[in-house]
Amino acid sequence: MAKGFIDKDFLLGCDAARELYHGYAELMPVIDWHNHLSPGDMACDRRYGNIGQLWVVSDPYKHRAMRLNGIPERFISGDASGREKFDAWAETCPYTAGNPLYHWSALELERVFGIDILLDSGTAQEIWDRCNAMLAEDRWSTLGIMRKWNVDVLCTSDGLLSDVGVHLKATEKAGTFRVLPSLRGDSILSFGTEENRKLIAGLSETVPVDGLDSYLAAISARMDVFGSAGCRLSDHALDSGFCFVRTCREQAERIFAGYLADGNVTADDKVYLSSYMLGFLAGEYAHRGWVMQLHIGAERHTSSRLRSLAGPAGGYATIGQSCDIRSLVDFIDGCDSVGRLPKTIIYTLNPADNAAFATLTGSFSEDGVWGKVQSGPAWWYNDHKDGIENCLKTVSSYSLLWRNLGMTTDSRSILSFSRHEYFRRILCGYIGGLVETGELPPDIQMLGKMVQDISYNNAKEWIFSE
Amino acid sequence: MAKGFIDKDFLLGCDAARELYHGYAELMPVIDWHNHLSPGDMACDRRYGNIGQLWVVSDPYKHRAMRLNGIPERFISGDASGREKFDAWAETCPYTAGNPLYHWSALELERVFGIDILLDSGTAQEIWDRCNAMLAEDRWSTLGIMRKWNVDVLCTSDGLLSDVGVHLKATEKAGTFRVLPSLRGDSILSFGTEENRKLIAGLSETVPVDGLDSYLAAISARMDVFGSAGCRLSDHALDSGFCFVRTCREQAERIFAGYLADGNVTADDKVYLSSYMLGFLAGEYAHRGWVMQLHIGAERHTSSRLRSLAGPAGGYATIGQSCDIRSLVDFIDGCDSVGRLPKTIIYTLNPADNAAFATLTGSFSEDGVWGKVQSGPAWWYNDHKDGIENCLKTVSSYSLLWRNLGMTTDSRSILSFSRHEYFRRILCGYIGGLVETGELPPDIQMLGKMVQDISYNNAKEWIFSE
Amino acid sequence: MAKGFIDKDFLLGCDAARELYHGYAELMPVIDWHNHLSPGDMACDRRYGNIGQLWVVSDPYKHRAMRLNGIPERFISGDASGREKFDAWAETCPYTAGNPLYHWSALELERVFGIDILLDSGTAQEIWDRCNAMLAEDRWSTLGIMRKWNVDVLCTSDGLLSDVGVHLKATEKAGTFRVLPSLRGDSILSFGTEENRKLIAGLSETVPVDGLDSYLAAISARMDVFGSAGCRLSDHALDSGFCFVRTCREQAERIFAGYLADGNVTADDKVYLSSYMLGFLAGEYAHRGWVMQLHIGAERHTSSRLRSLAGPAGGYATIGQSCDIRSLVDFIDGCDSVGRLPKTIIYTLNPADNAAFATLTGSFSEDGVWGKVQSGPAWWYNDHKDGIENCLKTVSSYSLLWRNLGMTTDSRSILSFSRHEYFRRILCGYIGGLVETGELPPDIQMLGKMVQDISYNNAKEWIFSE
Repeated sequence: MAKGFIDKDFLLGCDAARELYHGYAELMPVIDWHNHLSPGDMACDRRYGNIGQLWVVSDPYKHRAMRLNGIPERFISGDASGREKFDAWAETCPYTAGNPLYHWSALELERVFGIDILLDSGTAQEIWDRCNAMLAEDRWSTLGIMRKWNVDVLCTSDGLLSDVGVHLKATEKAGTFRVLPSLRGDSILSFGTEENRKLIAGLSETVPVDGLDSYLAAISARMDVFGSAGCRLSDHALDSGFCFVRTCREQAERIFAGYLADGNVTADDKVYLSSYMLGFLAGEYAHRGWVMQLHIGAERHTSSRLRSLAGPAGGYATIGQSCDIRSLVDFIDGCDSVGRLPKTIIYTLNPADNAAFATLTGSFSEDGVWGKVQSGPAWWYNDHKDGIENCLKTVSSYSLLWRNLGMTTDSRSILSFSRHEYFRRILCGYIGGLVETGELPPDIQMLGKMVQDISYNNAKEWIFSE
Repeated sequence: MAKGFIDKDFLLGCDAARELYHGYAELMPVIDWHNHLSPGDMACDRRYGNIGQLWVVSDPYKHRAMRLNGIPERFISGDASGREKFDAWAETCPYTAGNPLYHWSALELERVFGIDILLDSGTAQEIWDRCNAMLAEDRWSTLGIMRKWNVDVLCTSDGLLSDVGVHLKATEKAGTFRVLPSLRGDSILSFGTEENRKLIAGLSETVPVDGLDSYLAAISARMDVFGSAGCRLSDHALDSGFCFVRTCREQAERIFAGYLADGNVTADDKVYLSSYMLGFLAGEYAHRGWVMQLHIGAERHTSSRLRSLAGPAGGYATIGQSCDIRSLVDFIDGCDSVGRLPKTIIYTLNPADNAAFATLTGSFSEDGVWGKVQSGPAWWYNDHKDGIENCLKTVSSYSLLWRNLGMTTDSRSILSFSRHEYFRRILCGYIGGLVETGELPPDIQMLGKMVQDISYNNAKEWIFSE
Repeated sequence: MAKGFIDKDFLLGCDAARELYHGYAELMPVIDWHNHLSPGDMACDRRYGNIGQLWVVSDPYKHRAMRLNGIPERFISGDASGREKFDAWAETCPYTAGNPLYHWSALELERVFGIDILLDSGTAQEIWDRCNAMLAEDRWSTLGIMRKWNVDVLCTSDGLLSDVGVHLKATEKAGTFRVLPSLRGDSILSFGTEENRKLIAGLSETVPVDGLDSYLAAISARMDVFGSAGCRLSDHALDSGFCFVRTCREQAERIFAGYLADGNVTADDKVYLSSYMLGFLAGEYAHRGWVMQLHIGAERHTSSRLRSLAGPAGGYATIGQSCDIRSLVDFIDGCDSVGRLPKTIIYTLNPADNAAFATLTGSFSEDGVWGKVQSGPAWWYNDHKDGIENCLKTVSSYSLLWRNLGMTTDSRSILSFSRHEYFRRILCGYIGGLVETGELPPDIQMLGKMVQDISYNNAKEWIFSE
């Protein structure tokens, strides 16, 4: 890396920050409780033909930057070769200066491949050759790469019908870390969509879904299967426009029966029914001691053209309206009022909601449980230095930073575990900076405990102790 | 205090900041124009049995942090003893590192009790003993403590039926400062609630309220009483969901008559009626030369469970949606158009509204009156270093910082006057920092005048000159 | 200027910043692609009787600050003399310390008139005399002043019926730079207003507007005239409350026919019709290779009193609600889906939308076109140091800063070109600061190219190459 960039003390601007990182945070294992890795790739210890396959062809973040750089879609989501896509990315990479992709890319090349030159069109050939030479070796398999990260546990995101046996196989094959499923609940609520129809059809293969009772029973049965595979979390994408209304079992039964009959549901009825289901699921999570994650505020339907070319997760989503706090509070309070509120993590894609979300963590509580409602780490497009710092500042100012769960990647790439290093450097830079300005006492031992708790211990205790 | 923490130059990071604070801001008396102190406690010069009673049992900020730390509710709002609650707070205090509570607690122990160790479970006994020994002395009464703060005037927040004679007694007893009532107007508008029914019943004890005319007359009569006790301000909590519509006297009369008849009001009619009343009250404030405060954007109904345990001000409220600017503008313009706009302070709980609120101050004016509409200091959960700095920056960037009113505590605790010190240090740090970076000229005398105006002179002139 | 203020290295806090500014950014010409200058003033090379006329009487930013300072309206929009208004501004100027007006005023006095003292009541006479002495000379005409700025191209904002011949005359007279028209499209959509009726009447002088067909044809014909005068951009003020709905030609025809018949349009129909027109216009812009600018989020109707005194652009507007992202996405996607999306710049007045707008730039793309959708520079009230830095940070974090278009003034004053210097200093300070903290590599040559692209090359290529 060019002198002064991504060195040992990257992002550690003062002595306290360096002591906190090198003496404390750096030593901790990684828990990545929410990501979109493929458990199958781990179970079979997938190999990668070239760095284009591993690094570029499936990464929506890079695709987005390439589009912003005017790269034709053929080299992004199209039929160009891995090498062509890699070259298009190499051409784009310098233009990301200032964007997290610039840091991530440099970190990944350096930490995984030991390459300390920056990617651009001029260095593309050398980096292509050096990476591919490594990837040709057995120890550069999926698990080989992952072992570099000091991972303790990772939780993938899996639909209700997913085979969770593969996670056990992945754990066995990995040896040094556990691979657990977590439940992606979206299709359970997405009445009127193809995904929901498929889910009901799939569930019906065991016991026919002929009404709300049997739907709920079938869901619970699958949750038991997830539980037996070590599932500890669920998550829901409550996109921009999330609206919760209080409803009742009878209404939900009636709407669901109509939906089963003709496959359709009105917009209003869908709100009622999905509100009911969300309450039901929250209760199931609480009962099982699972964590409920709510991902709020994405606007996923933007360019119809890119959706048809690149699929629903193709990197062209945007930040939606700020959250309807009243709906969110109604939902959480509805669960709490009947003693069925699980531990909950709320994430917002719109940083204008950071303060509101951090504050909401102080509005619900349970005797003996610290941080019953947590605000999650900087999510998706917010996972950059300013975004992470903003989240740390809002949690610190409006809630208790020491009780925060730290980082999860939410990523589709095994190289993204370097973002835990990125997060911890920013965390130590932030706390160290407060020592430097006299806003925190220069008690490095106490603060070292604090950064270790945020980096690892909190997530371990809060998510994994029942 | 540990070396390098809360020392003489706490938050004063450069020479200019230190000169501005020690040479100028520190010297000014305090005007606290909006708080929730008990005038009765001052009138009888209340004593505190122990530091738990004084410091922990009635402080919703600490209660909130304790809940976030998993402390059982019995030790928060429950029947645990003052000592048990103090210990629960001592256990929680270190976990607030980074939160304003950490600074406030250290400042209060140091500035009031001269205690320079940090509170945690290990130091709890020593702090308990030392504080209680002091509180056992006569000079550690309510007024004894308050005399430490160089207070000039403080304004409590009082319902329309409150006895404002007690403020005069408090002023007499205090000797060195004035205690004035200010009008909390919420119950005047909260049609359909118990509070409003009680208010109407109370007003009817003098002259029966049998229609809108007599309601308005009774309110005006009470305002005259407030005025004779030195009232200079009112305030209204326009919570999240605030909606203003233009209406007329006839409509308001009709709705109010129906409401008197059966005690009920529809949601729509309530908006009409409260909009009408807000306009009426604004005119009354303008006529009397009072300041109107609008506190906007709180979501006070979150956990029903905590509301039943801890009461309506129990520390579990959250930040609501950003403000409907159109409604706010309609209300203010409606007053301005008929020449009945009082001096107005707008506060927002949602920091996403800071820029909009600061900008709105430039949208209304009156010949010869600087800052006719003001944006208030960082309110409630925003009263931390970043929140205060953000408010200073937005006022500075979008309005005139020199014409800003500075700080008020909005607190329920007599120890909170230390937050004026906290604010002034941040103010001097901010302005001094701009000198350091060359963004303001190094004219300390001019800037010293500026920080003294913001710290004291502006509030004195703007609020108290008629 | 007082020592340490507005010197050669103003806002350049580190070596890298100074190298980037003095070695690169400072050297580039200026493209000001959106402003409200008078092409007529340039065509006739207007002279200014005194500094009050040039600097104070027509500047809504100063008027706003003067109102905040309590200056009576007579000295703002009223019939006071230029000297009286200048004196009122001089009295106000020190109170703007911290506001961009303080920097702008000092910069303008220094860069244009070589005056290095700060304006206040004590220096007003000297500054008045020195400026007026200069303005009395021929070389201090409109064009004489403008030649100081190294302008390459500027684009004024012109209604559809404007005489665009005057731009050619201005270009000829200027000699060293081009003056081009750009289309202000508001009156085309503002059905039911006086402005729209006047537009239709004006268009009808050539060919009668008797239905939607002839309306669209007349608009296109005028756009051809604009095109022949070098027009490259349009802009639309989509104020707070902007709402887009999908509609169709038949519905638009029917509504427009009714509107032509009786001059009225319901609120709902207006949304349909203006949505249709916006789509039509976007297609026309795309067809011509023009850039479409969308200015979103202003609340222009605040004080009715000031509107009647100071006109619609009198400096009392405020920041409105955050944008309805769903409407904005629907509009852009509607254009994109039919291949009629022009290059687009989105501006928001509400900084709470900065992240959402910067992110939206990654949601639409065109093969071979970098930055098809751009987020514009800090607009209007946001055009201060923090606001500009926030925009740079959000574009950097959520999009590609290197592909950003840099600065345009949106100003009514020929002195405002100094804001390009202001912007470039902040840009170099920002990027230089990232080098200093190790967040960007210390490759000044690469970063120098980046700041030159942002300062000039990007706008030149993106806007002016067809």
